Amino acid sequence: MVDKKIPDIIIGRLPKYLRSLQRMDREGRLVTSSKEMGERLGISAAQIRKDLSQFGEFGKQGKGYSVPFLIKQLSEILHVNHDWEVAVVGAGDIGSAVAHYKGFANRGFKIVLLFDNDPQRIGTRIGELTIQDYSLLIETIQEKGIKIAIVAVPVTSAQEVTDNLVKAGVKAILSYAPVIINHPQDVYVQYIDPSIHLQRMTYYLD
Amino acid sequence: MVDKKIPDIIIGRLPKYLRSLQRMDREGRLVTSSKEMGERLGISAAQIRKDLSQFGEFGKQGKGYSVPFLIKQLSEILHVNHDWEVAVVGAGDIGSAVAHYKGFANRGFKIVLLFDNDPQRIGTRIGELTIQDYSLLIETIQEKGIKIAIVAVPVTSAQEVTDNLVKAGVKAILSYAPVIINHPQDVYVQYIDPSIHLQRMTYYLD
Repeated sequence: MVDKKIPDIIIGRLPKYLRSLQRMDREGRLVTSSKEMGERLGISAAQIRKDLSQFGEFGKQGKGYSVPFLIKQLSEILHVNHDWEVAVVGAGDIGSAVAHYKGFANRGFKIVLLFDNDPQRIGTRIGELTIQDYSLLIETIQEKGIKIAIVAVPVTSAQEVTDNLVKAGVKAILSYAPVIINHPQDVYVQYIDPSIHLQRMTYYLD
Repeated sequence: MVDKKIPDIIIGRLPKYLRSLQRMDREGRLVTSSKEMGERLGISAAQIRKDLSQFGEFGKQGKGYSVPFLIKQLSEILHVNHDWEVAVVGAGDIGSAVAHYKGFANRGFKIVLLFDNDPQRIGTRIGELTIQDYSLLIETIQEKGIKIAIVAVPVTSAQEVTDNLVKAGVKAILSYAPVIINHPQDVYVQYIDPSIHLQRMTYYLD
């Protein structure tokens, strides 16, 4: 990997390239091109070639890209060539859905902890996970050295939960709560925001 | 609005601009600049100016953008200057969470229908919604003329549900199921994919 600062907007496209390639792989495809990837993704072939060239030479002129090789390279670049352990906070509707979610397999993530502060829920199971006591969040996460968390709590608790996750050493947070959370510069935060996806489509509707 | 074909990748950025502006508006801000928006969004100021210039002249050189005016313009461009009625299919964990979700207010969407095929659930209420019988999906959606749906069903049902939504006249679908769904070219589909967001952050983690 070339050792330089890559713009974040390029990093943001790599997971989409990887997902597209993994789909091709499941279809049994061995070779693809920036043109084909671009058509699937709605991104120009030139953009894809330029993005990938930031990280090295992954294809041969006129020969396209090897699907398995590019999957391996992108997985390494994105650090998902191994599974990250993930903690989920909140065992309500969304937390339960996340704990059951089948879409993390082969994507680099494994939910290993699920916290809630409701005494009725603590100790009960969701799938293979036993709901843990939220009051033990910091020490439990520190002990396991977990760096990634998913926040699935009400708006009113999202900031407090984030603060505790940061104290516990978490460095990447995905939040389902529709509220901006404050966080230190060395902690990454992303939001699941269904309105953003819907608005992208209403542009095309009359 | 200039009458020409705008690249989809630009359309994809507009909801993020709008969200950022609405946050500024809630902070009481009246004026902003492409530089400030870019810093908040991790997008270059030049890109933002270029994207917005596709749709007209929204700011004065050196004066920046009026926050309320730009919100109004982007809301019109994205067709969210009014609320769209939305149907949700699946009243399990995710469907319930979507029905309770507070993040649609002022973003252009209102959930008005919630369907499930479980006789135990049909007729019960989630928030202000009564769960409707999935077998009446097509006629109910047609009757109300609903164009937008959220799919919150298991992977194994996602395609069948999509087919029925298309038959009912739905033109934009947001799916939470981790599976690609086939759809006609004139129907837009977006996916909620938490792995994409997580992978964007693991790049920065050691």
